[in-house]
Amino acid sequence: MDAFEERTRRCQDRLAAVGADAAVLFPSTNLFYASGFREEPGERHLFLFVPSEGDPVFLVPELYESQVREESWVETVYSWDDGENPVEYVREILGPLTSGASHLLVDDTMWARFTQDLREALPEATFGLASEVFDDLRVRKDDTELAALRTAGEVADRVSVEIRELGDEAVGMTEDELAAEIERRLGEAGGEEVAFGTIAGSGPNGAKPHHRHDDREIRPGDPVVLDFGAYVDGYPGDQTRTVVFSGDPPDGYEEVHEVVREAQQAAVEAVEPGVTAESIDRAAREVVEEAGYGDEFVHRTGHGVGLDVHEDPYIVAGNDAELEPGMVFSVEPGVYLDGEFGVRIEDLVVVTESGCERLNDSPRTWEPL
Amino acid sequence: MDAFEERTRRCQDRLAAVGADAAVLFPSTNLFYASGFREEPGERHLFLFVPSEGDPVFLVPELYESQVREESWVETVYSWDDGENPVEYVREILGPLTSGASHLLVDDTMWARFTQDLREALPEATFGLASEVFDDLRVRKDDTELAALRTAGEVADRVSVEIRELGDEAVGMTEDELAAEIERRLGEAGGEEVAFGTIAGSGPNGAKPHHRHDDREIRPGDPVVLDFGAYVDGYPGDQTRTVVFSGDPPDGYEEVHEVVREAQQAAVEAVEPGVTAESIDRAAREVVEEAGYGDEFVHRTGHGVGLDVHEDPYIVAGNDAELEPGMVFSVEPGVYLDGEFGVRIEDLVVVTESGCERLNDSPRTWEPL
Repeated sequence: MDAFEERTRRCQDRLAAVGADAAVLFPSTNLFYASGFREEPGERHLFLFVPSEGDPVFLVPELYESQVREESWVETVYSWDDGENPVEYVREILGPLTSGASHLLVDDTMWARFTQDLREALPEATFGLASEVFDDLRVRKDDTELAALRTAGEVADRVSVEIRELGDEAVGMTEDELAAEIERRLGEAGGEEVAFGTIAGSGPNGAKPHHRHDDREIRPGDPVVLDFGAYVDGYPGDQTRTVVFSGDPPDGYEEVHEVVREAQQAAVEAVEPGVTAESIDRAAREVVEEAGYGDEFVHRTGHGVGLDVHEDPYIVAGNDAELEPGMVFSVEPGVYLDGEFGVRIEDLVVVTESGCERLNDSPRTWEPL
Repeated sequence: MDAFEERTRRCQDRLAAVGADAAVLFPSTNLFYASGFREEPGERHLFLFVPSEGDPVFLVPELYESQVREESWVETVYSWDDGENPVEYVREILGPLTSGASHLLVDDTMWARFTQDLREALPEATFGLASEVFDDLRVRKDDTELAALRTAGEVADRVSVEIRELGDEAVGMTEDELAAEIERRLGEAGGEEVAFGTIAGSGPNGAKPHHRHDDREIRPGDPVVLDFGAYVDGYPGDQTRTVVFSGDPPDGYEEVHEVVREAQQAAVEAVEPGVTAESIDRAAREVVEEAGYGDEFVHRTGHGVGLDVHEDPYIVAGNDAELEPGMVFSVEPGVYLDGEFGVRIEDLVVVTESGCERLNDSPRTWEPL
């Protein structure tokens, strides 16, 4: 049996177990996970209906039909063309697949315009979220998935070292130029496309956790937050280092960098099966708080990584889910001094039987390489 | 008044007119259009509540707070941190903003996980889509928007010419390499980031309308569909040319290219205020059908372009909306001969008082430049 079909069959078992009649997926990582067909969300109706029993059915715009048939194991593919109303098809397909008033689990990222259409097509139906069945399947990675994640980690490691070796050459480049150079090298190193907006935040820009890059020129002594990764076989890399390319960093930087490095190390060492996700957040936060920077650590310690760059398990206060072998997540404490600089250090880890394995291994120092 | 505030006030007038109590936006082009704050959708609750009366309110994750305050004119910004439940805030904020059982218009692209939360927080509320008020505001572009779109068109034109001047050099490159070269030059020409997955479809790959690029090497005589664009100030370019870099094209190619060129020309000439969107589709399709390729023109003739690469007005059979000055859309007929080649020619046009202005002007020929 095709690996994707196998996942779909497991999904169907869970649908039945939670009392749902079908999952309705639209272009998303859940849809790829179940079908093997990968596409970005768009404004045309493209659905995969997975009933709790029987075979799944695609409904796609006509111009996708041959591609879907080629890339997916799913045999039944209905198509509609631009002059037709796809909502009619939804009613016709879901009617026989489910019986009367049904309970449907829609993709968590499905756009409101499509969920509104589903509600209109099936006024008696009740709705839940597909994560109810998919998250638990996807949170433990199989060997194929881990192989892709390891390679994506190696790609990020390689580019991290290459970029740091620019040294003096990076001084005078704008953040925009540095980010473009990172992305070019990710491609050369074997990445498919960038996994998220590359961050190259220099000086005070590094203190804004979600700043990406702008036309600020990198100066000697600037701390620069470098957070990037690329997809390999659909699975992303995600790594952060905070470095100085040349010259002396600002006062206090060395101390903050060491605090963050220790916090990251403490959190990684705390990872093992059976401990809670929030205990990993706690391990990092305690180090930062003891050093007096608790208020400047303004985000959670990490997020799960798989087909989605952000997925379960979230490493955050309040998440008492227990870690299990095969889970993959980021460990990325940070300290942000408004108007001065920021420091973040991030690796992906996979939970093993006895602890964890880091998927990134480039130097976690800040000095020029 | 700030341009973004002005748009929000117009949006509020329309909310009142359609009987809605508030629009609830999440990271989207609507949110940028109203607030000036731009972000990608993510799994954290980030909303802009626009009531029909009074001032709008942001609810954002703590780590976005300073950025939102900096980039948006909206003064009231509530933030929640990773340990809190943002749904509580939704209830507290929307309660006073709306009265009792309210009618809310949610962003068309809002993820189901957030619409489910809104339904849970406000069980008495009814829901519609924000496009009901935003589409009509956004469909006519103001001068600032047109300036950005013109520049994005020039960027695409320049790269189109540069790439075609590769001539013999392009032979032997893979589609992947050609696409990377296009994207690099888009950045050099002033584009911010690519507006959509660059298409470089050579030979039979050009016959799949949604193929992007793969490792197929370009051979002498291959027709190559080149469809690309980049953002300028948040507004995208989008242009297609089908070219031969070197050598003699396959039998029938010249004729098909001429049919598509004439269809595109006929459609552009049909554009003027007061005619329907579908009449433009008709104008292109008639030329293709008369030439005997009607069945191979498998998609609509075009789509509106603005902050979204695909938005109103859709140039498609069944859309009897009348064109008005300031509307911007693509005109892109195509003919796809399965297993052989495809031809598509696309320009963006803006409707003027008396006809239209093309936003692209690179040669629409296929021969090497």
